Amino acid sequence: MNVVALSGGVGGAKLARGLARVLPAGQLTVVCNTGDDFEHLGLHVSPDLDSVLYALAGVSDTQRGWGRAEETWSFMETIRQLGLPDWFNLGDRDLATHVWRRAQLQQGATLSQITAQLAQRFGVQQRLLPMSDAAVRTRLDTDAGVLDFQDYFVRQRAVPRVRALQFAGAEAANAPLPLSSLQPDLIVICPSNPYLSIDPILAIADWRQWLQQRRCAVVAVSPIVAGDAIKGCAAKMIREFGLACEPATVARHYGELIDGFVIDSQDAAHRGAIAALGLPCGVTQTVMKSDADRDALATAVLEFGRRLRRRDEPGQAAATAPPHLV
Amino acid sequence: MNVVALSGGVGGAKLARGLARVLPAGQLTVVCNTGDDFEHLGLHVSPDLDSVLYALAGVSDTQRGWGRAEETWSFMETIRQLGLPDWFNLGDRDLATHVWRRAQLQQGATLSQITAQLAQRFGVQQRLLPMSDAAVRTRLDTDAGVLDFQDYFVRQRAVPRVRALQFAGAEAANAPLPLSSLQPDLIVICPSNPYLSIDPILAIADWRQWLQQRRCAVVAVSPIVAGDAIKGCAAKMIREFGLACEPATVARHYGELIDGFVIDSQDAAHRGAIAALGLPCGVTQTVMKSDADRDALATAVLEFGRRLRRRDEPGQAAATAPPHLV
Repeated sequence: MNVVALSGGVGGAKLARGLARVLPAGQLTVVCNTGDDFEHLGLHVSPDLDSVLYALAGVSDTQRGWGRAEETWSFMETIRQLGLPDWFNLGDRDLATHVWRRAQLQQGATLSQITAQLAQRFGVQQRLLPMSDAAVRTRLDTDAGVLDFQDYFVRQRAVPRVRALQFAGAEAANAPLPLSSLQPDLIVICPSNPYLSIDPILAIADWRQWLQQRRCAVVAVSPIVAGDAIKGCAAKMIREFGLACEPATVARHYGELIDGFVIDSQDAAHRGAIAALGLPCGVTQTVMKSDADRDALATAVLEFGRRLRRRDEPGQAAATAPPHLV
Repeated sequence: MNVVALSGGVGGAKLARGLARVLPAGQLTVVCNTGDDFEHLGLHVSPDLDSVLYALAGVSDTQRGWGRAEETWSFMETIRQLGLPDWFNLGDRDLATHVWRRAQLQQGATLSQITAQLAQRFGVQQRLLPMSDAAVRTRLDTDAGVLDFQDYFVRQRAVPRVRALQFAGAEAANAPLPLSSLQPDLIVICPSNPYLSIDPILAIADWRQWLQQRRCAVVAVSPIVAGDAIKGCAAKMIREFGLACEPATVARHYGELIDGFVIDSQDAAHRGAIAALGLPCGVTQTVMKSDADRDALATAVLEFGRRLRRRDEPGQAAATAPPHLV
C-alpha cells in the first residue's frame, strides 16, 4: 500500500513517524510544507521539513516538542552574547542540517535533492519531499501589518490577529517532481494547521491538480481536538476567521479534496457534523504522546483509508462509506 | 606610542594579546594574515584573524592552543554522524563567528568591516585588520603536489615536503585601508611563521611599500627558539628549504624590512649572528605560557623598539643600536 502524506511540522511529523513505523520501508512519501522556510543568519531554515526529517530519523526531542534530541545551545549562547539576532533558536546539532543545506544550495543543488541526501544520511527509509524547489513564502495579513511567517509565529508569538494569508511565489512554483510518478493507494492529510501547513501545498497548481485528479482516496486527520489545537495556532486562526473551532470547520475547508475525515474520540459528538458534509468519519484517539500512540493512529488511518473510495468515483461513494472507527 | 603588529595565528596572537594588555586602548592595530582563509561547509573560515580576535577578547582556549574557551562539539559530532567532511574542527561557539561572517559577506560587507564589527561585539578595544579584503590564498608547492594551505596543514598534517609557496591573488590585492592613515611609532612582526603568516602580508604591494617607506622602526620576534618552532611548521619548512633552523635565518629572511630582532634567552649564543647582520638584537624570554609571560614579552619588545631607529635613517643607525635586553 503506497501512501503519500501531506504534512506541516510537529503534529504532522508525529503521524508521519507513525506511518513510517507501520508501513514497510519504501511505501511512504511525505510531502512537506516549505512556506515557513526562511533565511536566518544567512542559513536556509526549513522548519517543517526538518521536523519531519528528525521525526522519521528518530532524533526529535519529543519532550521539548521541536528540534533535535540531545541538543546543546553553545551557538545560541554566543549569538546572544554578541548581540546578534537571537529570536529564532538554532541548536548546535540542528545547525549541521542548516549549514550543510546552505552550502549545497550555494553549489546549485535543489532543495529536494538536498532533502533526499539528508534523509539518506539520517538513515531515513521513507521519501521526504519539499512541496517545491522554488521559494514559496507564507505571509500573514494581520492587524499588525503583513508579516513573514516566522516573524508572526516566533518573534511575535502568533499574537497579531490574522485576516488572510498569502503564499508568495506559489503561482510560479512547481512540484519538485512529475506527480504522475506518485501512484499512491492512499493520500493522508496529516493533523497539521490547514491554513499554514496544508494550504501552501494546495496553493501550488501541481499539487492541487494532482489531488483533484487523484485515483485513490484522501483521508484527513483533524488538527482540532476538543475545541483546540494540540500545538500551534490553528484554533486561534479559526476563531479569528469567525468560524467554529470544531473538526467540521477543517473538513469543510478541505471540501472536495478529501474523501474521509478522522476526528478524535473526545469529539465523537461531532461525527454527525462530518457525515452531514457527505464525508465518512473515523473516530479514534488522535492525540499522540508516544510512539505507541503514533503507531495506533497510523494503523487506524490506514485501515480507515483502505476502505474509503474516491467520493466521485461513479456509484461508489455511498456504498463504500466505511463504518466509523472505535 | 602607536603600534602596528603583523601577525599570523596562535604564536602571533599571544604577543598581540600581550601588546593589547600593556598598551593603552586604541594604540594597537593588529594586521592579520588571511592567506589561510578558506571556504568550509559553505562558511568563510579565517583561522588567523579568529585566533587573534579570540586572544584579544580573552576567550581563547589557552590549554588546547586554538579555538574558543568553553567550547562544545555537538555540531562536529553531527557532521561526523552524517558522514560529512569532518577534517576541520568547528566548535559550536566558534560557529557563531563563521556563520555571521558568511551572512555578512553575502550581504556585501567587506572582511575588514566584518572584522571590525566582530571585534566590537567581542568587546575588543584594539583595531584588528585583515591584510586585505580581497582573497589571497596560500598554496604550497610540495612533493605531494600543489596544496591549499588547510589541505596541507590540517588534512595532511603538514607532512608533505614544501618546495615553495604561492600567494594566489596577492598581486591584485590591496590593503583594506589607505596605509598612510596608519602612523605607527613602532611596527612589530610577531613570532609567527615567516613563510606562512608574514610573507602573505608582505606579498601585498601596499604593505610591502608601507614597510619599505616606514618612518619608524620595525622589530621582529623570532618564532624559532632553541632550534625549533613553539607551534606549527616553521622549523620543518626552514629545514626543507635547506636553511639552518636558527633565529638568524628568520632575521635574514626579513632583511632590510626590519631594524631590530628579538630572540629567546635560550638562544643568547645567537646574538652575534644577528649583530653580524647589522641588526640590534634583543634577548629575552619569548616563550609565552601565561598572560604574565605575554605582558613581559610585550613590554620588552616595546622597550627594545622604543630605542630602535630605522636602519637607514641618516647617521642614526650605529649610534642608536640599543643595548641587548636581559
